[in-house]
Amino acid sequence: MIGARGAIATCVAYGVAGLARGWVEPTGLVTSIDPLRRLDLAGFDQFVLGGWDVCKRDLSTTVSGLVREGILSQDLVASASAEGTNFESRIRPGILDGPSVGGSDLDPESSRRGALSAREQIAELRADIEAFRDEHKLRRVVVVDLTSTEAFRGGLLEQPELQSLDALERALDSGVSLPASVIYAYASMGAGHPFVEFTPNAGATPKALRELALDLGVPHCGNDGKTGETLFKTALAPMFAARALSVKSWQGYNMLGNGDGAVLADPAHREGKLRNKDEVLTGILGDHHSHVAIDYVPSLGDWKTAWDFIHFEGFLGTKMSMQITWAGCDSALAAPLILDLARLADFSATAGEGGEMAHTACFFKSPIAGGTHDFNEQHRALVEYCLGHLS
Amino acid sequence: MIGARGAIATCVAYGVAGLARGWVEPTGLVTSIDPLRRLDLAGFDQFVLGGWDVCKRDLSTTVSGLVREGILSQDLVASASAEGTNFESRIRPGILDGPSVGGSDLDPESSRRGALSAREQIAELRADIEAFRDEHKLRRVVVVDLTSTEAFRGGLLEQPELQSLDALERALDSGVSLPASVIYAYASMGAGHPFVEFTPNAGATPKALRELALDLGVPHCGNDGKTGETLFKTALAPMFAARALSVKSWQGYNMLGNGDGAVLADPAHREGKLRNKDEVLTGILGDHHSHVAIDYVPSLGDWKTAWDFIHFEGFLGTKMSMQITWAGCDSALAAPLILDLARLADFSATAGEGGEMAHTACFFKSPIAGGTHDFNEQHRALVEYCLGHLS
Amino acid sequence: MIGARGAIATCVAYGVAGLARGWVEPTGLVTSIDPLRRLDLAGFDQFVLGGWDVCKRDLSTTVSGLVREGILSQDLVASASAEGTNFESRIRPGILDGPSVGGSDLDPESSRRGALSAREQIAELRADIEAFRDEHKLRRVVVVDLTSTEAFRGGLLEQPELQSLDALERALDSGVSLPASVIYAYASMGAGHPFVEFTPNAGATPKALRELALDLGVPHCGNDGKTGETLFKTALAPMFAARALSVKSWQGYNMLGNGDGAVLADPAHREGKLRNKDEVLTGILGDHHSHVAIDYVPSLGDWKTAWDFIHFEGFLGTKMSMQITWAGCDSALAAPLILDLARLADFSATAGEGGEMAHTACFFKSPIAGGTHDFNEQHRALVEYCLGHLS
Amino acid sequence: MIGARGAIATCVAYGVAGLARGWVEPTGLVTSIDPLRRLDLAGFDQFVLGGWDVCKRDLSTTVSGLVREGILSQDLVASASAEGTNFESRIRPGILDGPSVGGSDLDPESSRRGALSAREQIAELRADIEAFRDEHKLRRVVVVDLTSTEAFRGGLLEQPELQSLDALERALDSGVSLPASVIYAYASMGAGHPFVEFTPNAGATPKALRELALDLGVPHCGNDGKTGETLFKTALAPMFAARALSVKSWQGYNMLGNGDGAVLADPAHREGKLRNKDEVLTGILGDHHSHVAIDYVPSLGDWKTAWDFIHFEGFLGTKMSMQITWAGCDSALAAPLILDLARLADFSATAGEGGEMAHTACFFKSPIAGGTHDFNEQHRALVEYCLGHLS
Repeated sequence: MIGARGAIATCVAYGVAGLARGWVEPTGLVTSIDPLRRLDLAGFDQFVLGGWDVCKRDLSTTVSGLVREGILSQDLVASASAEGTNFESRIRPGILDGPSVGGSDLDPESSRRGALSAREQIAELRADIEAFRDEHKLRRVVVVDLTSTEAFRGGLLEQPELQSLDALERALDSGVSLPASVIYAYASMGAGHPFVEFTPNAGATPKALRELALDLGVPHCGNDGKTGETLFKTALAPMFAARALSVKSWQGYNMLGNGDGAVLADPAHREGKLRNKDEVLTGILGDHHSHVAIDYVPSLGDWKTAWDFIHFEGFLGTKMSMQITWAGCDSALAAPLILDLARLADFSATAGEGGEMAHTACFFKSPIAGGTHDFNEQHRALVEYCLGHLS
Repeated sequence: MIGARGAIATCVAYGVAGLARGWVEPTGLVTSIDPLRRLDLAGFDQFVLGGWDVCKRDLSTTVSGLVREGILSQDLVASASAEGTNFESRIRPGILDGPSVGGSDLDPESSRRGALSAREQIAELRADIEAFRDEHKLRRVVVVDLTSTEAFRGGLLEQPELQSLDALERALDSGVSLPASVIYAYASMGAGHPFVEFTPNAGATPKALRELALDLGVPHCGNDGKTGETLFKTALAPMFAARALSVKSWQGYNMLGNGDGAVLADPAHREGKLRNKDEVLTGILGDHHSHVAIDYVPSLGDWKTAWDFIHFEGFLGTKMSMQITWAGCDSALAAPLILDLARLADFSATAGEGGEMAHTACFFKSPIAGGTHDFNEQHRALVEYCLGHLS
Repeated sequence: MIGARGAIATCVAYGVAGLARGWVEPTGLVTSIDPLRRLDLAGFDQFVLGGWDVCKRDLSTTVSGLVREGILSQDLVASASAEGTNFESRIRPGILDGPSVGGSDLDPESSRRGALSAREQIAELRADIEAFRDEHKLRRVVVVDLTSTEAFRGGLLEQPELQSLDALERALDSGVSLPASVIYAYASMGAGHPFVEFTPNAGATPKALRELALDLGVPHCGNDGKTGETLFKTALAPMFAARALSVKSWQGYNMLGNGDGAVLADPAHREGKLRNKDEVLTGILGDHHSHVAIDYVPSLGDWKTAWDFIHFEGFLGTKMSMQITWAGCDSALAAPLILDLARLADFSATAGEGGEMAHTACFFKSPIAGGTHDFNEQHRALVEYCLGHLS
Repeated sequence: MIGARGAIATCVAYGVAGLARGWVEPTGLVTSIDPLRRLDLAGFDQFVLGGWDVCKRDLSTTVSGLVREGILSQDLVASASAEGTNFESRIRPGILDGPSVGGSDLDPESSRRGALSAREQIAELRADIEAFRDEHKLRRVVVVDLTSTEAFRGGLLEQPELQSLDALERALDSGVSLPASVIYAYASMGAGHPFVEFTPNAGATPKALRELALDLGVPHCGNDGKTGETLFKTALAPMFAARALSVKSWQGYNMLGNGDGAVLADPAHREGKLRNKDEVLTGILGDHHSHVAIDYVPSLGDWKTAWDFIHFEGFLGTKMSMQITWAGCDSALAAPLILDLARLADFSATAGEGGEMAHTACFFKSPIAGGTHDFNEQHRALVEYCLGHLS
């Protein structure tokens, strides 16, 4: 996990420990219910967790924040303390993204790695992965990006060096500078490890990376986990379309308070996030006025509260409205999906399925393989993929 | 339309006039959008509207209430005044349901009809329908029940005389007393006219009536239009199931103020309504605490406001919540569905499809043919029915 | 504290420990801010807590529930474990109220006490208080009722034996049966100890008890702590009145899940509660449609969620609305007020003020001394009382 | 009324006609209820309405929009058509504010007036007022600013020429350029006519203008009518302070759709509005995180919908929340206050009270005379002013 000292990764670590020992229910795990649970997926007792982070913050700091906010229970933390310690011992310094300055607890080693050439960064990351795999005698490593949103780089996906694998290889030889998420994606997939982009970062989205995945037959998916406001929005909007109700305005106001929120308070970082959230409904509802805001409200901590206002017109031009307030805990919503995606990526790799895992679109705000944003249809595609493998 | 002086029927009447002349957009009509609009359905200029009602209230009283509440525009009322007058002239006295005392404006002729034997009632209703059809040279008559909710009769559907058509015929000969809605259903379908039960009333639900429909090859559907809280509930609940989120409590509070609300303020009438609303989620979500209330709030008029509170648990036992406020205009939501169902019933009759129109389940809180309450699946079934007829 | 094993009393116990040691901020304590904090009030290090309860549940059970719900922190519980143990050792068996059967963990000694004559009950309670006072060398004991709502007894306040102290004394001699809360009030005040009725129970409300308080110069106050929905309602409603906006309907839906909620799920118990909630706005807003519901939603635990819908009319008859959702933790809202009221009752006793503490009206849904329900005016009266004592 | 072709002025015009004839209830008029109605205030049949506007839009366009949105009834419009026509005939071309370009229906005469020197503008406006007064034989003229928010001019109030009346007079002689609202205020008050600033515009706020009002003994008040979100915010926030609850965050999201909204979609215009809304709670609640947004949602028309999220901490550090949705009609909320303020300004002028009408603070987001923003205290000051005049 990239961003291994953050709230989501910490919930994943204690959650896996709890699932493996039966202390935690598999609530929120799509692979725990029918039909997906009938697939031959990795068991939680087979998971070994490790990762990278650019900060040196003790994991216990993240843990105590999660306990204070009522997300991790003191009991689980105490019972799984050995697993927590082991996980922390497997966290390596990450690569600081170019435009980022890091926080006050920046790992100097991450600064050093951030200043290396892309080829050198890739080599160090691969060495980390291989050492991890060898030490724990793992059948497979799946890399998942859980960092904060990187600064938005306009036009990145159109840059010539990202249009083909050849162009990228040449650019790497010439010392091109790339977002850290793209380096991680290249390092992982280039060595045959599946890659999951759970943030809005570029990751494996550039054409060159997608070509790499296809060439090497490595499965990957992303971007940007669909965990809260975008989830219910894309589950609900099809109802208006099905009933020929004309949505005039859909306003979405998001408030969040954790580290992710602090990063998004910076407009450069927020832009990447908002682009994924604002456009999802156009394909479902057609033209309408829409607006999505994300505001940093420190007191909320890891809790995300969103308010959506939907103004729609029915028969005879009658104006009606629907309002939704969602109060969800970001890490508790995201963590089980990380486990689902790691299991599904591993399954695809075993099945020899390379390239974009189109059947995982329901997990993402901006699925790499494109397609509808209608959650119900996306979910059906996942179910059909699963039934295909079961029959 | 049974209940022809009510708000829904009035919106239907002015709406059809407006649609036929292009003054009104087909917003809210499922048959106006793809793929249903590609079926060969009756045009709005072919509709001739008539009905029954047990009250004598001038249609202009209903109209001015709807104008005051911003549902009907003064402009449409003025432009379609001829159509309004014609419609009113075609309203005949309805059959007062046994346990009902009617309002202060009760039509004495409806009292007289209410006191007749069932056989006599059936004969008078058929005579009304046939006179209407002959006068306007109609290809087909579709009967739609839009009355207020009848008093709940516990055990009605289990009564021996409703278990088969034979038993019913014998009971009719012996002077059985039946809910008015069952009489209307028998009178309509027995003479070959499709029947739509848009209320929670028994209508065509009893086995004997369903047998009648199959025997005569008459299409029918119901019960209880899914227009508001139940609509969004059954569109949204599948999201929780798909994500393995555990819904602990789903509370639904409904407030309404029109005549329908006044009737539902009486517990005997409310029971029928609540039974349809409270059970829809169990099949989707499994066991959970749920509660549905309907309260009469006179100042709301024809506007229904519902607040739903959903308490759910995610990974690590984290409790989260979702709240929804729906402010919808009952008549404007229902009226276009009446037109959709009349067109679809006519289409089925032409296609020779008798019995329950299972493909219309997405229109109803309690589909006669049963099946899932998941709106997304129900809607897909409608689309598939349509595509089957188009291919 | 009567109901000493409940959530509020437990929060009071750990809260006092934390306040005395500076581990807990005095948030939510009205006596901690200007001008009240300038009064010469008892310090938190002077408090010694004890109480009665009819159940035997270990305090640790209540504590772990409060920790799990994020109300008490594990840190405070650990730090104040000695105070917690001491408090629990001072809890005596309460008097089971006549119509109540108690829960599965009913203390048999409470059943025994419940079956005694009123005179005997009074004698035992006084002995408890005096033993407590003597053992801890206390300057004063204040008794606070924190039990669940007693079963509603229609006409209780009009019963002849409660119309005067004389009549009550005679009735006690004849073996009258009285609600437990009235026995507690008589036992406390009759021995000179101030009494605070924080529940909707009768407590010191009957005329005979109020006469007793005046005769003996004992201060008392109640009823029914104003902590949530009724608090914001009575703070907000005056705005509509001040602006001549005409409130047509005010609907209030309350959901709660703790032991209090389970008790209120029983209509007999709920009636007492609803009577206090439903009538508060009439004096402020004049005639309007109103409705208050309380529903038991087990998953909410100690969290109360209320939704209020206010439908109002402005100029030109325009209908507008306001909706409020309040998500509050019952015990954390009530506990500091218990401390405020104990301090204020002690202050009044020292100042020689007997009878109803009219200046505490802002703390109660149904102030014994009557007067406006307008929270702003009630609060001003408290401030003025305080300024009077400071000048 | 400045902005006489707008929605508020139109509601005032038809509303006064309806009030004078008894067709309209005085709902929403503070001067219609005790104790203010006992003051000797101008009767509605004594009002003669006129105004200025920079656009040429027919009043019937504004009227039909208000009818369509359910704010003005067709009946009132028909009954008061003569009054409507008369009012429109008394609308004169306004002065286009310097930085504004006006809309597509800009009155060329307003452009001409906008290009005049300030002295010339003042002379033309005075001539308009005097002609209006003489023609209708009026006892007094009160000028009320109801225009859209002017572009924000940073540092305006600190400009040397606005620090004293002398400096202003010299600047006017030298051809200074001033916001239109300041010109209107000078023209009105300089000729002895009371002035009400109902928008966030500078109007009579500059020191020089306040000096003018005191010198000439002319009453005036402002700024920015407190009609919706800020109203309930300042009525409710004192409750948190009174209970020592610690508000951590108060987020306010405003959506509006009328002409006012379109103007506020421009950041230069929005800044003036937000400055008044964002700071009102600091004095009441102390330091806390707050954020106010205003978004233009065209489909809402004249309806303003606001959602406020209040995150607060209670005892034991427990985090709780309150959410409020306000759906109000801007014009129907503002119009009665215009009438109240005109009557009160007239009353003050008759009573010989010059300068800021401090007792009207409860009507404004940013009262010129300063003081608390606590609505309850502000309202009490108004009541006390009134009682002072009645005793």
